[in-house]
Amino acid sequence: MPTSSPPDGEGSETSGTLAGVGEFGLIARLTAGRVQPASTLLGPGDDAAIVAAPDGRVVVSTDVLVEGVHFRFDWSTPEQVGRKAAASNLADIAAMGAVPTALLLGLSCPESTPIATLTEIGDGLWAEATAAGAGVVGGDVTSSATLVLSITVLGSLEGREPVTRSGARPGDIVALAGRTGWAAAGWAVLARGFRSPKVVVGAQRVPEPPYAAGPAAAVAGATAMIDVSDGLLADLGHIAAASGVEIDVRPPPVPARLADVGAALGVDPVHWLLTGGEDHALVATFPPDAGLPAGWAAIGEAREGSPRVLVSGKPYDGGAAGWDHFAR
Amino acid sequence: MPTSSPPDGEGSETSGTLAGVGEFGLIARLTAGRVQPASTLLGPGDDAAIVAAPDGRVVVSTDVLVEGVHFRFDWSTPEQVGRKAAASNLADIAAMGAVPTALLLGLSCPESTPIATLTEIGDGLWAEATAAGAGVVGGDVTSSATLVLSITVLGSLEGREPVTRSGARPGDIVALAGRTGWAAAGWAVLARGFRSPKVVVGAQRVPEPPYAAGPAAAVAGATAMIDVSDGLLADLGHIAAASGVEIDVRPPPVPARLADVGAALGVDPVHWLLTGGEDHALVATFPPDAGLPAGWAAIGEAREGSPRVLVSGKPYDGGAAGWDHFAR
Repeated sequence: MPTSSPPDGEGSETSGTLAGVGEFGLIARLTAGRVQPASTLLGPGDDAAIVAAPDGRVVVSTDVLVEGVHFRFDWSTPEQVGRKAAASNLADIAAMGAVPTALLLGLSCPESTPIATLTEIGDGLWAEATAAGAGVVGGDVTSSATLVLSITVLGSLEGREPVTRSGARPGDIVALAGRTGWAAAGWAVLARGFRSPKVVVGAQRVPEPPYAAGPAAAVAGATAMIDVSDGLLADLGHIAAASGVEIDVRPPPVPARLADVGAALGVDPVHWLLTGGEDHALVATFPPDAGLPAGWAAIGEAREGSPRVLVSGKPYDGGAAGWDHFAR
Repeated sequence: MPTSSPPDGEGSETSGTLAGVGEFGLIARLTAGRVQPASTLLGPGDDAAIVAAPDGRVVVSTDVLVEGVHFRFDWSTPEQVGRKAAASNLADIAAMGAVPTALLLGLSCPESTPIATLTEIGDGLWAEATAAGAGVVGGDVTSSATLVLSITVLGSLEGREPVTRSGARPGDIVALAGRTGWAAAGWAVLARGFRSPKVVVGAQRVPEPPYAAGPAAAVAGATAMIDVSDGLLADLGHIAAASGVEIDVRPPPVPARLADVGAALGVDPVHWLLTGGEDHALVATFPPDAGLPAGWAAIGEAREGSPRVLVSGKPYDGGAAGWDHFAR
């Protein structure tokens, strides 16, 4: 914040840009006419927002997305950028077994940024937050040479215990909800200058995290959970390390469309399935006697051993398993 | 997030930079050995953190600070930058009448940024958060051409009603806790290439928000409150607009040090007092029969009239009253 909404500044030749409309003018445009969910006790416009936390706890996560690193406007529309920024954060809440309640946006961008770009990003944020049950309750706008979206999401555990990364036990079943590899295939397509097949390009532009599968897994007794933002093997590696278990997965079956794209580009689609990030699937471990909820499919098991992830009993040697923005 | 902490990458000539240490290595350094307050139910290292919200509500605010816009490393040490970034956000929680509980950091910066710079920013964040009673519970790190700090703070109302900007009523007393004008005087000194007097330069580098005065005002029955981030008149203008009252203030007495600095620089120090931001004082309205809590001093009153702020009964014409990052 600040998030108050005094009248817009009236610009001239810059009137269609942030420089012309000003910080408060943009905030007025981003918040006008929005409908907040019941969990928003006080929305934008004051020093801070107030969000319901019915069980006396709040789940919170923050994520930063940078133009040119996490998104490109020649690949995605501003609305798609907003949806992806929200989705990648909301998935972190689901991965704790919680239900998203609220989202806040910290926006920094050049003063020459068109207002239409920023309001469309706002539209995307609102659309995705609403789909996940959350409101957009506040934010901040400032000038910067680079367009950076800083998203914070809140959630409610609804009285349940959180599902962390550290609870997997030997004998647990490893299961997946949602898809992996699609965003990576879309990236490979876009990076080669193509714009189709639309189904993989769309997956790169806007992920479809299975939000409801997170709380469902918690109800079913999941012992550990994480969202697949960096790749299935990399993110299972976090569970293996935090839980002190060895995890052995079978490669999921290759969907026909990914097989086609892989053949066209000369890439083994199994590599995308195992190492592709940005789809924000959920992967979790369940006790062997737990029934898997709808939408979850078993892909392997946890066992005693050194904390690592194997594919069909062997270390995976198909390439770099994950994504660290700085490590080379 | 992610906020897990695998072993550091080992670089070579870049080992002292973010490029050498990597995202996870930096997070490990920022979180190692920190002591969380009791309100941190689950700290960094998972998909999300969990923070206590004992009365079933959470106060939340987010703020973005950009190098070159909000701070400069030739004016401030990284530790001071971290303290200021935290303080400016924590003050928003106090301004609702709430107690800060948690802080999250979204950090984007060039890969060439020295790790020492980033860990010192982290030290400053921790120091200020701890002073206000909050933990640093999570964050995210990514690459960007510009160093941007995105801070989110959470707080607890401890069962009280929030003190918003919209509750001031005709007849209310306007009162101030903390100081105004000192950071602006410090800015004027630094902008002219000087480094003293230290007391005003220090105020520009690290504000000292009166955190406890916010909840104390709420307990005493404050009807409206805001933190002075953009200037006393500008921020009182938000209360006037949101509450539909006219506010008339007397200029606070000029401290001797500000008078000295003003004389040396040829600036009327009253202008700093009325329009200087970044000190993060709290200004609030109280019913006329409420006793002002310790640390609060009456500076004016609210009355029926058009929503505006007067100084001793007249519109203030001493210069631009506030700071909008984009409006010109």
